[in-house]
Amino acid sequence: MRIAVVGGTGKEGRGMAARWARAGHDVFIGSREAERAAARAAGLQQEHPGLAGKLAGGDNVWAVQHSELVVLAVPYAAHTSTLESLKPVLGSRVLIDITVPLQPPQVTRVYLPAGQAAALEAQAILGSDAQVVAALHHVSAAHLRDLDHAIDCDVLACSDHAAALEQALRVIADLSVRAIDAGPLCNAVALESLTPVLLHLNRAHKGASVGIRITGL
Amino acid sequence: MRIAVVGGTGKEGRGMAARWARAGHDVFIGSREAERAAARAAGLQQEHPGLAGKLAGGDNVWAVQHSELVVLAVPYAAHTSTLESLKPVLGSRVLIDITVPLQPPQVTRVYLPAGQAAALEAQAILGSDAQVVAALHHVSAAHLRDLDHAIDCDVLACSDHAAALEQALRVIADLSVRAIDAGPLCNAVALESLTPVLLHLNRAHKGASVGIRITGL
Repeated sequence: MRIAVVGGTGKEGRGMAARWARAGHDVFIGSREAERAAARAAGLQQEHPGLAGKLAGGDNVWAVQHSELVVLAVPYAAHTSTLESLKPVLGSRVLIDITVPLQPPQVTRVYLPAGQAAALEAQAILGSDAQVVAALHHVSAAHLRDLDHAIDCDVLACSDHAAALEQALRVIADLSVRAIDAGPLCNAVALESLTPVLLHLNRAHKGASVGIRITGL
Repeated sequence: MRIAVVGGTGKEGRGMAARWARAGHDVFIGSREAERAAARAAGLQQEHPGLAGKLAGGDNVWAVQHSELVVLAVPYAAHTSTLESLKPVLGSRVLIDITVPLQPPQVTRVYLPAGQAAALEAQAILGSDAQVVAALHHVSAAHLRDLDHAIDCDVLACSDHAAALEQALRVIADLSVRAIDAGPLCNAVALESLTPVLLHLNRAHKGASVGIRITGL
């Protein structure tokens, strides 16, 4: 599949792009600065020779236009403006929104945005027909980046669009993690707000890089 | 320690009362109906002979007055009124609020109350000096009830009062679970809202009784 990672030059985007390319997907890294994205794509190819899929970089709209599925990986401060710029070109593509509404520097405290969750705000901005999925809030960038590292963390994903959620769960599983259907999009409140708790644990247990597992499944 | 379980005739209260009594705590089960609480205490003693601690039942205020630490285990619909009735007698006791703001019958969808979290509402009702801790939202009643069952679920607890949180973590560990400091009380939003997700998983995976684990600690 052709996957766009919008904001793909960030920490999270880096590991996801490489893992998906390893799994055979073609990955289009998007950035506000096309050259940074192109440099990141070239850098990842150098770092991981022999990836099964292609890696390329360009601006965010370019990345979406080349893709079948879009991952939104921008800081919350750029969330609304990025969505508005992508809205005209997104079409019926599935959008996996990994945004957590953090309020730096207080990233270890839950902050609820006006729309209760970034993903609910994305759905409101894009309209109710948009194929929004919220997921990938809990896997640390450090774990994603090390491609040989088995990730001891489940990925919870939620959406109001069943087919979109199914496609997202398949694509997420290609990161070599267990992907779990967490219900309707309003449950993004739970998924997003758990991240500050995990960041608190990382800080309290110096050097830790924690994750979550669902037990009893 | 003398522990009051307010609303202790409910599903969650049942297993906690028995586990704490087994660990040597004296447990005071509270209910709006004192007789139901007394009957539950007698029933648990019969079910689990030889518990190290005492079990007794009475009305909620009676239970609090006999205790050193209070666990609030009422349905969200009774949360505000119960707190208001306990406020005059609570004093400096630690209050562990296990309430999840569910909106039956839609218990598999996150519902955010006006105060963002039940525990934040409890703190507002009781005043900022009250020793409120939010915890125990994720351990299933079924797992708690079976005293010989090793519970494959961590307990996350948060509070704005450090000494209260420390005491709560020690008491929770006596349920034979791992108890983890999850940060300030505002993080109760994350803890409470995860419960509808777990209920969704229980429903989607028929007969499951899921929990969570923090990995990487």
